Amino acid sequence: MSPSRTAPTLIAQYRCFDGWVRRYRHASESTGTDMVFGVYLPPRAEHAPVPVLYWLSGLTCTDENFMQKAGAQRLAARLGLALVCPDTSPRGTHLPGEHDSYDLGSGAGFYVNATEAPWSAHYRMYDYVVHELPALVEAHLPVTDRRAVSGHSMGGHGALVCALKNPGRYASVSAFAPIANPSRCPWGQKAFRAYLGDDPQRWRQWDACALIAQAEERLPLLVDQGAADEFLAEQLHPEALEAACAAVGHPLQLRRHPGYDHGYYFVATFIDDHLRHHAQALLGDYL
Amino acid sequence: MSPSRTAPTLIAQYRCFDGWVRRYRHASESTGTDMVFGVYLPPRAEHAPVPVLYWLSGLTCTDENFMQKAGAQRLAARLGLALVCPDTSPRGTHLPGEHDSYDLGSGAGFYVNATEAPWSAHYRMYDYVVHELPALVEAHLPVTDRRAVSGHSMGGHGALVCALKNPGRYASVSAFAPIANPSRCPWGQKAFRAYLGDDPQRWRQWDACALIAQAEERLPLLVDQGAADEFLAEQLHPEALEAACAAVGHPLQLRRHPGYDHGYYFVATFIDDHLRHHAQALLGDYL
Repeated sequence: MSPSRTAPTLIAQYRCFDGWVRRYRHASESTGTDMVFGVYLPPRAEHAPVPVLYWLSGLTCTDENFMQKAGAQRLAARLGLALVCPDTSPRGTHLPGEHDSYDLGSGAGFYVNATEAPWSAHYRMYDYVVHELPALVEAHLPVTDRRAVSGHSMGGHGALVCALKNPGRYASVSAFAPIANPSRCPWGQKAFRAYLGDDPQRWRQWDACALIAQAEERLPLLVDQGAADEFLAEQLHPEALEAACAAVGHPLQLRRHPGYDHGYYFVATFIDDHLRHHAQALLGDYL
Repeated sequence: MSPSRTAPTLIAQYRCFDGWVRRYRHASESTGTDMVFGVYLPPRAEHAPVPVLYWLSGLTCTDENFMQKAGAQRLAARLGLALVCPDTSPRGTHLPGEHDSYDLGSGAGFYVNATEAPWSAHYRMYDYVVHELPALVEAHLPVTDRRAVSGHSMGGHGALVCALKNPGRYASVSAFAPIANPSRCPWGQKAFRAYLGDDPQRWRQWDACALIAQAEERLPLLVDQGAADEFLAEQLHPEALEAACAAVGHPLQLRRHPGYDHGYYFVATFIDDHLRHHAQALLGDYL
């Protein structure tokens, strides 16, 4: 039986802006583990299925950080957007080294399909967030198959890669402070070496800057970046994304915000702009 | 030298809605300990001092819960309101039993001045939040002496008590799911017995329902209460507040919200209404 045929188990729910924040657990075929995810269903979902913004979180996060800290439900309720927040890695496994550092293993799945042992047994977060989770929520929750994707930091990388690798699958994409060129920064190199092996050629299919050149669909990218982000110079490299987009004419709106750092106060400040960006693509004339 | 003459130490700051979330540490005379508090300064504070909403948090919280989870900065930035969030108890002491339960001792100061040993040495949160902290922030941050007070649960009790005991000190008051009649609920009785002694007569000066009868100022109370609050029947008793207000004609707007529980998704849903309530009183014609 396909996992999407089994309803996820509701483990908590909270009324919020006249809709519901819910947490579900289900057995994932992609990761071979139980996975927990969060959902915000706007009031409109009580009457008709609504489109979904998938949110991919950053290193050390769970399904809860964005729900609790971004303040996204207020406008999502008005726009009639559902929010779906997966966890950032499989949980409950104890692979060698899995829990030793914040930037590899648990809390650090990087939204790739690992090919290398021991990770390949469970770390298939790309299949999970692109295919399994949408199939599950579309089968069991009042949502449509109109999808958008966004994320923060490692999840910003994930959002860009998911959209660039899947023309037609997402109506819109955006990112906050994404790890824009993971093949060329310490976080990305450490994770890709472990999950994908030592050959940098194999990393290119998981690097937004490499994927831009061959993208079949020129979906506009909305990217916000804090200029006082403590990880900007070493890890994030928005200038590489800018160059990759410029080289092939890929539409990019990169906004640099003086004074803003890498945290959720930055995300909260600009999340409404992203929600409107996605609602315009998802709902268009219905807004 | 008065503590308010010594500037608090800035320990962190985050840009947020074009203002600043800041955390400060200072030596408190009231508690005899170091205390940490959070501040949100709206953009307007760069040009002129702004009025302050003091927010008192609930059991187990710190200065950070409201800042991270309520989503208040968006509208506070537009209205030109500062937010000041004290911690919920002294920290760093190790009194007998202080860390044994979530509803007494650390994280559970109840905004009273303890009279009983061992608590009376440090647990003077009323003096701290009503006098010492406002004097400190008014001396060192770009804020005025126009004050409002609000809070959640234990902090809702605190907000009501601070306002009722201090006519003229606050322009407005509100509360989310307050412990409205602490003398008559398990949380309040446990805390009051420990901090104030066994005689319930001494608890009356810290119980909003008792203070209402003798209030010299009829400041309108805005109170929001979730109807699905898991603590409603045993701990909160809004009906007692309603009766106390009715008995003396004290203005009360008590809103019961079907489906909402005790948590921060409830606070986030209605915080904007409270901010507007306070801004109207603090800023009036300037809005």
